[in-house]
Amino acid sequence: MEKETSFGNVLIAQSGGPTMVINQSLVGVVLAAKASPKVKHVYGALHGIQGILDGTLIDLGKESSDTLEKVAVTPSSALGSVRRKPTAEDCAAILKIFHARNIKWFFYIGGNDSAETVKILSEHAAAAQSGVVCFHVPKTIDNDLRENDHTPGFGSAARFVASAVMGDDLDLRALGGVKIDIVMGRNAGFLAAAAALGRVEPDDGPHLIYLPERPFSPDAFVQDVSNIYKRLGRCVVVVSEGISDRDGVPYATKFLKEVDSHGNVQLSGSGALGDALVALLRARARPRIKRMRADTFGYLQRSFPGVASSVDSQEARAVGKAAFEAAASGQYASGSVAIKRLPGETYGVSYEVVPLAKVAKETKSMRDEFITPEGNNVTKAFLDYARPLIGELPVKGYLQAIPADD
Amino acid sequence: MEKETSFGNVLIAQSGGPTMVINQSLVGVVLAAKASPKVKHVYGALHGIQGILDGTLIDLGKESSDTLEKVAVTPSSALGSVRRKPTAEDCAAILKIFHARNIKWFFYIGGNDSAETVKILSEHAAAAQSGVVCFHVPKTIDNDLRENDHTPGFGSAARFVASAVMGDDLDLRALGGVKIDIVMGRNAGFLAAAAALGRVEPDDGPHLIYLPERPFSPDAFVQDVSNIYKRLGRCVVVVSEGISDRDGVPYATKFLKEVDSHGNVQLSGSGALGDALVALLRARARPRIKRMRADTFGYLQRSFPGVASSVDSQEARAVGKAAFEAAASGQYASGSVAIKRLPGETYGVSYEVVPLAKVAKETKSMRDEFITPEGNNVTKAFLDYARPLIGELPVKGYLQAIPADD
Repeated sequence: MEKETSFGNVLIAQSGGPTMVINQSLVGVVLAAKASPKVKHVYGALHGIQGILDGTLIDLGKESSDTLEKVAVTPSSALGSVRRKPTAEDCAAILKIFHARNIKWFFYIGGNDSAETVKILSEHAAAAQSGVVCFHVPKTIDNDLRENDHTPGFGSAARFVASAVMGDDLDLRALGGVKIDIVMGRNAGFLAAAAALGRVEPDDGPHLIYLPERPFSPDAFVQDVSNIYKRLGRCVVVVSEGISDRDGVPYATKFLKEVDSHGNVQLSGSGALGDALVALLRARARPRIKRMRADTFGYLQRSFPGVASSVDSQEARAVGKAAFEAAASGQYASGSVAIKRLPGETYGVSYEVVPLAKVAKETKSMRDEFITPEGNNVTKAFLDYARPLIGELPVKGYLQAIPADD
Repeated sequence: MEKETSFGNVLIAQSGGPTMVINQSLVGVVLAAKASPKVKHVYGALHGIQGILDGTLIDLGKESSDTLEKVAVTPSSALGSVRRKPTAEDCAAILKIFHARNIKWFFYIGGNDSAETVKILSEHAAAAQSGVVCFHVPKTIDNDLRENDHTPGFGSAARFVASAVMGDDLDLRALGGVKIDIVMGRNAGFLAAAAALGRVEPDDGPHLIYLPERPFSPDAFVQDVSNIYKRLGRCVVVVSEGISDRDGVPYATKFLKEVDSHGNVQLSGSGALGDALVALLRARARPRIKRMRADTFGYLQRSFPGVASSVDSQEARAVGKAAFEAAASGQYASGSVAIKRLPGETYGVSYEVVPLAKVAKETKSMRDEFITPEGNNVTKAFLDYARPLIGELPVKGYLQAIPADD
């Protein structure tokens, strides 16, 4: 029998905005850890590093398989979440708890800010020679993590957005007019761009897509919408909440004043941007548009149950498993697992360990080849990139609408 | 062989707001009509009675079964829609077209306003001794048609709302705070009430539901939300867009100025009501609530593809078939088909012909027994009533969250 000291415990936590599949990654780590002969206890901290500091740890090893599988298909972060950047004091306190609990492997499921947290913590762990292996497990609906072809959570949110805009375009066909849909994405337009995946026929919406990657011009917006409306009698416009002017100032800051804990203006959870764009069209679009509406998809797009992408679900599970295996291999003191797309015609991915510094803090945006030269739509290259990630969309059918004989 | 004059043609149109299953009813009429030896042509008018007046008729008999079945599962009105009340001149013009086209049976799929249109038209048809049988086929996500236990379209919209709020409650558990979700329903609160169907555990949201059936008190609202937030650290609030003061003035009129063609303030397609309620809480809730968000579900709740209720889909198809059979039976000059619930433990319905006057124009609201005495939630009686209508909701699971041993 191995000595007690050769065993270690695992601690897992979740951080940042929830996704539909973040619990798949949680369960991926838990099941791999439970199956490992190196692991004694599998703990979870509630609400990220806050839970470690508060001592609210739970024993994930005591959860039944049935519970874990139900949790895996449940949207949002089952362990709760937090947005908190650890101070040096926090790190010292956390390492003390790791030592007391014999935690040898720490997993933090989150986006770029969470990767930054793991990086800071791993640097303190190395300096203290604690031997704790710190891993970041990627997730974000924004799809903006560097080193990753795409991120767990994006495919499902993209499937929601594509479905929603498909339905919205069908709705607008019935009664005409202009519809503006505001989609999440502070700095990266991937999710807004995904709205185009629901198009089947040439006139299907969304007809215009405005992204944070291109400066937003109210003049061009009014002209673009007017042109489409004149031609089709309707226009579905998708707008990323992060659209900004040439100086990078978010357009929404003209109407919003709430600031979050990072000093960023709170873009989500308000309908103000959509309402302001409707007001802009009302004042300036000619000919006048009779019927205008704006919907802000808000939190539905990241936590709606029952619409997760099958591909995204599988990959989110796999990335959790891959993170545990890499951490337990003994080859790394820290790292993040990145999703890489395999070359070739058939879609496939591999999971690779990358240094935390390469995914932490900074994010990536849509590549130029994904955006049309006019900056108000996406290209076939984007559709080819994104389509394999969202699974099958619901079928839609149109009447042939053959005119009645006279 | 029967004489040509013993045959007749069918005309179908759709009116009012779309639903996820209104095309099931369309296809229900079309398939029954195509199968009838009495019918020669099955026509559709684009955009309701506007299409009859404009002469934009299509030949639905030429649509393939494959197309029809795809259209049946596609949200929104495949024939297009309109909101238009016919004048006496309109009716005369329509009857002239009916005569020229040998139309013997007219079907109009819509809500109470559409039933009123059919009633007006049928009175003109009777006065002119045209012999045209005019039928209304029910649909509305608002569930407010009289004579009907429930209406086609409600179950699917209710399934969307219940799923969305289930996801939103899970999302809010992760980061805490207050979330306000604005749901459609100008005069009836059924759809807002349906948010409660996603509850499983005692603390699951929605924690508060405000309905148009009870006067909205900003004071009570602030107090209710503060109480729940103090107890749970979070509060999911569902608010019907139609909440009104004691005099029946919609609360949203304080922030909205757009008026539709019926002179009603346009409640949907704006985030203003949700944003105003957040501002109210920010000003007055004590203790202060750190994180507040509002989402307005908007048009997603009536036209989202892939989340239709199976029960609702079947009933919407059946009600179209029943309307054709009643009209073709020769027993009625006009009518509407109403869904009645069969007595007994097991859920079941029948389809009955009712006079147009009984469903046209006026609507119904939530019964008193469906609303709690405090007026800020729904009762078990409502849940028992509504649960069979929405089909199976997605599974959700919670961790047991057994504290780690010391």
